[in-house]
Amino acid sequence: MSKQILVINDDGITSKGIKALVEAVKDLGDIHVVAPDSPQSGMGHAVTIGEILKINSHEFPIKVASSHSTSGTPVDCVKLAIYKILNRKPDLLVSGINHGSNSSINVIYSGTMSAAVEGAVESIPSIGFSLLDHHPDADFTVSKSVVKTIAEEVLEKGLPKGVCLNVNVPKVSVDEFKGIKVCRQSSGYWEDDFEERIAPNKETYFWLKGEFTNPDKGEDTDEYALSNGFASVVPTQFDLTAHHFISGLNSWKLSNKK
Amino acid sequence: MSKQILVINDDGITSKGIKALVEAVKDLGDIHVVAPDSPQSGMGHAVTIGEILKINSHEFPIKVASSHSTSGTPVDCVKLAIYKILNRKPDLLVSGINHGSNSSINVIYSGTMSAAVEGAVESIPSIGFSLLDHHPDADFTVSKSVVKTIAEEVLEKGLPKGVCLNVNVPKVSVDEFKGIKVCRQSSGYWEDDFEERIAPNKETYFWLKGEFTNPDKGEDTDEYALSNGFASVVPTQFDLTAHHFISGLNSWKLSNKK
Repeated sequence: MSKQILVINDDGITSKGIKALVEAVKDLGDIHVVAPDSPQSGMGHAVTIGEILKINSHEFPIKVASSHSTSGTPVDCVKLAIYKILNRKPDLLVSGINHGSNSSINVIYSGTMSAAVEGAVESIPSIGFSLLDHHPDADFTVSKSVVKTIAEEVLEKGLPKGVCLNVNVPKVSVDEFKGIKVCRQSSGYWEDDFEERIAPNKETYFWLKGEFTNPDKGEDTDEYALSNGFASVVPTQFDLTAHHFISGLNSWKLSNKK
Repeated sequence: MSKQILVINDDGITSKGIKALVEAVKDLGDIHVVAPDSPQSGMGHAVTIGEILKINSHEFPIKVASSHSTSGTPVDCVKLAIYKILNRKPDLLVSGINHGSNSSINVIYSGTMSAAVEGAVESIPSIGFSLLDHHPDADFTVSKSVVKTIAEEVLEKGLPKGVCLNVNVPKVSVDEFKGIKVCRQSSGYWEDDFEERIAPNKETYFWLKGEFTNPDKGEDTDEYALSNGFASVVPTQFDLTAHHFISGLNSWKLSNKK
């Protein structure tokens, strides 16, 4: 029986990145696309509670087994796909290809990665892919070969329970591309700022602006790989327990207090 | 100089839970409230990109140093507080008290915890508090004593870099309450389902329904503590790297591929 592959994204079902992703995996199994009907970037692991959800069938520009847009977030799309559209768990979940980086701390704000994490919660081998290029018309040539290589390996080998992959691809040409590196998440973060403006009605409003800062010079980080022409692969988990601080915390004066 | 304490939530600035949180910490320093102007539950680590944000001053029902509502998510509130309202990093960030559990896998969907995680990203000692009672008029008596105990310890001892605390309180009376336990996140999850309905215009729509399932019987988990009358404290981190799978992944045929 052919493999069932679920394709999700957060930039919306009409983005160039999801088309590139389908092109890269279409020979690996039956492709089912379930994606938001509008862009959902920065949605993190948002899920729709207390609001209704809608599903519409969608004509995808490439021949696929099924294609649906939804009114929900990327995480909603994963849940709707499994429990309402496919009525089964797929053999592989791929999310992306995101227009923009999800390396380093970006993983926690990322709708693309939230779909992959939700897949892992559902025990589905899951991978999120992102290209370090925000342009709507970005070149996905290198990304597509990276997707194919990693998706084939994951279909063959599976992934450990509770783990998905966060794959980022540098903005380089085929000639400049150096290969794929297994990495850890760097500890870089955003130095945020807000630009203050005045509306025509004199009300003040704000736009978020930020600058990425990376004090983490480790050569085993995703940032290091990406800035040296490599695609980064970070195994990513949803157990957020800081296990290294459990024993430290046990020495606090908490346990006996009522 | 007195300590600066930032108070955030995701249920909205008028909820009973944030009032209980302010009551619990008001003697520990100067209180600054920055919270969403409407409920933001299930928002995960959503951040507002490409949309404007607004801030309004708010008359909080308890005397505080400052109080503002914003049009943004809990994570937006943290960023706006630091970079636009306080113009400094507070000495402590407390988020909640959430009406409903954020134990186990709920941590990844939680707006309350996303604010605490964002605080940790900004190197602020941060704690998220949740009560296992969704009722808008829930009894926060036990929660308030837990908040005070833990907030005082964190103000005194700080937290390691990259770590915040996820605190959940069981729905029990003062007499039934057993104390505070340091735990790991259990591997319980939601068995999801959607209820299908037909709108007056004949369109189909869906409501998410789910049932929490916990195969993890570990006595060191948050779920075990909570179901035995203890409040759970899980040290929580934003490094999502599955470090235990780095070497396994390095044995795959990825690294040399271009």
